[in-house]
Amino acid sequence: MITRNEIRLIKSLAEKKNRRREGLFVAEGPKVVGDLMERMKPAAVFATHQWRELRHCEAREISDDELRRASLLQHPQQVIALFPLPHETRPEMPPTDELSLALDGVQDPGNLGTIIRLADWFGIRHIYCSPDTADAYNPKVVQATMGSLARVNIIYIILEEMMAGYGGEIYGTFLDGDDIYQTSLGSGGLIVMGNEGNGISREVASRVTRRLLIPRFHAEADRAESLNVAIATAITCSEFRRQFSVKKS
Amino acid sequence: MITRNEIRLIKSLAEKKNRRREGLFVAEGPKVVGDLMERMKPAAVFATHQWRELRHCEAREISDDELRRASLLQHPQQVIALFPLPHETRPEMPPTDELSLALDGVQDPGNLGTIIRLADWFGIRHIYCSPDTADAYNPKVVQATMGSLARVNIIYIILEEMMAGYGGEIYGTFLDGDDIYQTSLGSGGLIVMGNEGNGISREVASRVTRRLLIPRFHAEADRAESLNVAIATAITCSEFRRQFSVKKS
Repeated sequence: MITRNEIRLIKSLAEKKNRRREGLFVAEGPKVVGDLMERMKPAAVFATHQWRELRHCEAREISDDELRRASLLQHPQQVIALFPLPHETRPEMPPTDELSLALDGVQDPGNLGTIIRLADWFGIRHIYCSPDTADAYNPKVVQATMGSLARVNIIYIILEEMMAGYGGEIYGTFLDGDDIYQTSLGSGGLIVMGNEGNGISREVASRVTRRLLIPRFHAEADRAESLNVAIATAITCSEFRRQFSVKKS
Repeated sequence: MITRNEIRLIKSLAEKKNRRREGLFVAEGPKVVGDLMERMKPAAVFATHQWRELRHCEAREISDDELRRASLLQHPQQVIALFPLPHETRPEMPPTDELSLALDGVQDPGNLGTIIRLADWFGIRHIYCSPDTADAYNPKVVQATMGSLARVNIIYIILEEMMAGYGGEIYGTFLDGDDIYQTSLGSGGLIVMGNEGNGISREVASRVTRRLLIPRFHAEADRAESLNVAIATAITCSEFRRQFSVKKS
C-alpha cells in the first residue's frame, strides 16, 4: 500500500522547487527505474506484484489502482521509485581529450531527455547545462532519457565562465558556419547546442572556436525549414563519431 | 467572433474519425499556418487582430479569449486554420533515383512530426507510411512538423506490397547490419524506419535489401541504451546526404 502523504510527495516532485527541498526525484517504469538502480540506491520503491516478482528487490507492493493514483504518467508502468538528487559537486573542467556537450538554454524537457539518451549512445559522459536549460530531474526529462540519466553526468554551470578557462576546441552550429561534412573534426572538445527558438546566446557564441553548419539539401534557398535541437545534436555527434572511427580504422 | 459550433468542430478534429468525416484538419500558429497556406487553400481561418494586421488575408477575427477556448494547444498562438485533407491519390511507386522514407508503425505523433520536419531539411519529398503509423493530420503531428507538412508528401500504404514492386535499394537499420559509416550508400532508394518498441516488422524486414547498423560508441557491450526513432532517422539521412555530397564534390 501507499499512503496519501506519499502520493502527495510524489506528485509534488513534478515541481523543481519541491525536488530541491526534498532532495528527491521520481522515475517510473521497469526500464528507467532498472537502469537507475544499477547506479543509484533508491530512497523508496513502490511497485505492483508483477514487478516485484521479477526484480526480487526491496519494494513496497501497491495495487494497480494505487499505481494509477500515484503516477505522474498517463500510462503508468508497474513501478515508481524515488531517488536522491545527485550531489552538486563543483564540476571539473570538461576533459579536452574526449567529446562533451554544452547546452545553452535547451528548454523543452523532451528535447533534453532525448539529448541525454543520444549522448549515452555516442559515449559522451558529460553534459554541461546553462542555468536556464530545463532541469534534468524533471519527470518528463527522466522518462525521455530511457534510463540514460544513470550513465551521463549533468552539470549546471554558467557556460561562458567555464568556457573562459577551457583549453579545448569549442564547436557550435550556425547558419554561416563551415559544412560539418567537409570539416576535419577533432576527437575531443565541447559541442555547444542552443535554445530551441534563439540558438546559442551571444556570450556563449563568442567563446566558440569552430563554427559549423549542418547543410540543407534542396534547391529552394528561401525555404524556412529548421531542425529540432535534439535532431541537430544527433547529426553533429554522429559526424564527430564517424570521422573518429574512420581515422582509427 | 467564433460560434460554439465552430469551436466544437475544431475540438472534434483532434480525432481521426472526425477528420475523415469532415475532410478537414487543424493547424495553429503563424509559422505552421503560414507555411501550409503557401501550398494549400484553407477552408477557414480564425485569427486575432495581431495576426490579421500582419497577413492581410481573409480571416475571421477572434478575441484572445475565443482563441484560448477554440485552440487545441496549451499555449495558443494567434491563429487557428482548418485545411482540407489532401486527396488520397493512389500513390506512384517511390522514385528509385531519389531518397524516400518508409515508416513501419511509427506511433508517437511527436516522432512522426519530427521525422516529417527532418525529411524536409534533407530534401526528401515522399514518406510512405504503414497503415498503423500515426496519422500525419493528427494535430500533434501537424504542430511538430513546424510547417514541413506543406512540403513533404505523406502516403499511407501497405509497405510490403508496395516494396514487392519496387526496383530500388531498400535500406533498414538493424542490430546486426553493416556499419553505416563504412558502407557505400546510394543516392536513391527507400530508407525504412520501424516502430518505437518493436522495430521493423518481419514482413517489411524481409524486403530490405541492405541491412545497416548505427554503431554505438562505448566500451560496455552489455549496456541497454537505444536510439529514439526520430534520432535514428536523422543520423541515417544525414549519412546518406553526406556521402552524396562528398561524391559530388
